[in-house]
Amino acid sequence: MPDFDWERPLKDLHELAELTGGPDGARRLAWSEDWRGAREWLLGKLAETDATVERDVAGNLWATIPGERDEIVVVGSHIDAVPHGGWLDGCLGILAAVEVLRAHKGSTPAVTLKLVDWADEEGARFGRSLLGSSAAAGTLDPEAVRGLKDNQGIALPDALKENGIDLDTMGAAELPEIAAYLELHIEQGPRLEEAGKPAAAVIGCFGVERHSITFTGKASHAGSTPMNLRHDAFLSAARFGLAARESAIERGGVATVGTVTADPGIPTIINRVCEVTLDQRAFTPQQLVDMLADVKAAAARIGDEEGVEVEWKRIWQIDPIPFDARLVDLAAQAVGEITGDEDPPRLPSGALHDAAEVARRYPTVMVFSSSTNGVSHSPLEDTPEDDLRIALRAYGRLYELTAGMISAP
Amino acid sequence: MPDFDWERPLKDLHELAELTGGPDGARRLAWSEDWRGAREWLLGKLAETDATVERDVAGNLWATIPGERDEIVVVGSHIDAVPHGGWLDGCLGILAAVEVLRAHKGSTPAVTLKLVDWADEEGARFGRSLLGSSAAAGTLDPEAVRGLKDNQGIALPDALKENGIDLDTMGAAELPEIAAYLELHIEQGPRLEEAGKPAAAVIGCFGVERHSITFTGKASHAGSTPMNLRHDAFLSAARFGLAARESAIERGGVATVGTVTADPGIPTIINRVCEVTLDQRAFTPQQLVDMLADVKAAAARIGDEEGVEVEWKRIWQIDPIPFDARLVDLAAQAVGEITGDEDPPRLPSGALHDAAEVARRYPTVMVFSSSTNGVSHSPLEDTPEDDLRIALRAYGRLYELTAGMISAP
Repeated sequence: MPDFDWERPLKDLHELAELTGGPDGARRLAWSEDWRGAREWLLGKLAETDATVERDVAGNLWATIPGERDEIVVVGSHIDAVPHGGWLDGCLGILAAVEVLRAHKGSTPAVTLKLVDWADEEGARFGRSLLGSSAAAGTLDPEAVRGLKDNQGIALPDALKENGIDLDTMGAAELPEIAAYLELHIEQGPRLEEAGKPAAAVIGCFGVERHSITFTGKASHAGSTPMNLRHDAFLSAARFGLAARESAIERGGVATVGTVTADPGIPTIINRVCEVTLDQRAFTPQQLVDMLADVKAAAARIGDEEGVEVEWKRIWQIDPIPFDARLVDLAAQAVGEITGDEDPPRLPSGALHDAAEVARRYPTVMVFSSSTNGVSHSPLEDTPEDDLRIALRAYGRLYELTAGMISAP
Repeated sequence: MPDFDWERPLKDLHELAELTGGPDGARRLAWSEDWRGAREWLLGKLAETDATVERDVAGNLWATIPGERDEIVVVGSHIDAVPHGGWLDGCLGILAAVEVLRAHKGSTPAVTLKLVDWADEEGARFGRSLLGSSAAAGTLDPEAVRGLKDNQGIALPDALKENGIDLDTMGAAELPEIAAYLELHIEQGPRLEEAGKPAAAVIGCFGVERHSITFTGKASHAGSTPMNLRHDAFLSAARFGLAARESAIERGGVATVGTVTADPGIPTIINRVCEVTLDQRAFTPQQLVDMLADVKAAAARIGDEEGVEVEWKRIWQIDPIPFDARLVDLAAQAVGEITGDEDPPRLPSGALHDAAEVARRYPTVMVFSSSTNGVSHSPLEDTPEDDLRIALRAYGRLYELTAGMISAP
């Protein structure tokens, strides 16, 4: 049996925050010197274990301890962070995974154990999330990202090259044959805190429909244009945003108008153009289909009624990704055992995770800890340490249950 | 009787457009070399009349023909234009006024006749409209405008100095004792065109309430924040904009959300802050009071329901300014005589005009011509020439009726 000490990952997290955080938040932007420094620190932690470390051609870091059996259980997450991010997003899962390896110090695990630190989960510098994990899962199209540049004008292929990675060959970073992939993460949302629960089993990741919608009406004078002769692009977008919310509530998903630009955008002229982004997410493909149909119909109706043109452009789309049913049951069992909760929460993840890339190919599950105020991607990101302790112990228990299931005859 | 030739102002307008317009629109920005050039051209036109020309200390240009009586009738408008403006806004009224003076060539008018070309009606360079007319009307507070700068960083007092004007003494530009002020202008809105009418009597200028309203909610993740736990600043502003429209329709005024900024404004985060400007206008003080009360109540209700904070900042306020009732009747009579319309249109002006400054002190009225598509402040600004002819003739007739009324025992 592994010999866990769940105070160690907490200590590690504080140490990492000390090294790569501060009042302005995390400094671990993928492909940067800061990030490489964080990984050096991680290598130091891995050196305390019996694992063999290697980096694949996509930049993902792997640490392996051969087990009594060849079946592979992968534990991991990502050490990279958004600029001004928090101390838990990604790191929590990494340090939990390190503790799983550390707990096998001097002993042979029942299954072959691999830790993974995915490269560039956040996509914060070039706008493409899950880069390392998608390369390994075989879903990365180099052509779709070749032209991406950071805000300094540096191209993604050049930043990769600086890190010894070739965009054209990083897709060769094959995943091993994985029996189970287990990831611990903070929720990054308010649901667990709201429900008074420290941890949950995650049933999968929401699918996403992301569009840019442009409303084009007519600029005219704010004083001399009567209300019945206006074609107001902003008010059209306003009605659209409210319709998108209504649809999300009715269909059980979420919808967000994020970017909003109004033109000419001055106090005395009716806006001619209003461009918004709409991000819709839900856990079933049918919900997403219904939500998109709802807002397309709403936009057409609003366009007619307001006398404005509506133009749609799809930015991104990804299907919902359910996690492995047996592993979800084990995760719920593990959370229940630690919390004493007879009906431990099972949540879909509204955010995407590397686990979603792995789940396309191999059995996968995640455990969430609560998030204070639901805040993430912010220096204010936090979780009560007692909740972290429970989530870490549940994650360790999930690993034991999973290894046990695989080892069972 | 004056000997009008209403083809002359049309010819003049085309000549001025040739000189100071072009495909990018008008080049007559107040206090600029272009504007001084346009005034030189205007002086040439005035030289064809019997008028004596002088400039007051606020930069307004006056041309006087003494009449049989001392009572003064002022005709005029402004030759300055917004950048990329049209060929009629301001100039129409100036060239109509020139024609009134020209029509008295070699004869003495019944009343003393003054043309005025107000300086900087548009406020397009420094953001303060009606500068010359407010200085003359005694409503300009030098301290309120001393700090204004143009987009090159040039301060208003320096631009004035370059034109021989001292901000601190321009308020000495006293208006003469005016018996009637008459101004012809394009409507800059779609109401006359919509009604199939070439011209109208203007009953006064809308009052304005202009505010900046900031909604502050909570930034959170677009995927992991359920709909019922959001505090969405953009959707709050969206509801507010629609409530402002509803109130304007109900109260018979107009309301416009012009500037809109959403922060952080990225596709995957719920907006924490949304700042909008609201411009409300109406013809009676009570309408404005009601409209402002409506939107204050709406904002408070929306703030409560959405869990967002609402902050108000007044940008500007001006009371409605009704024109002189007897002159409005004469203007309507003049329009009716020219068009044969038994019930000629009487409209309030949604836009402000120099006439509003004069009307605070002396009997004032305006005549509007139609505006094609309601477009102004644009190179596309236009009016059918037949409508211009009718409006010019109505304006000439208004002058005759006014002079007759003043001269009558």
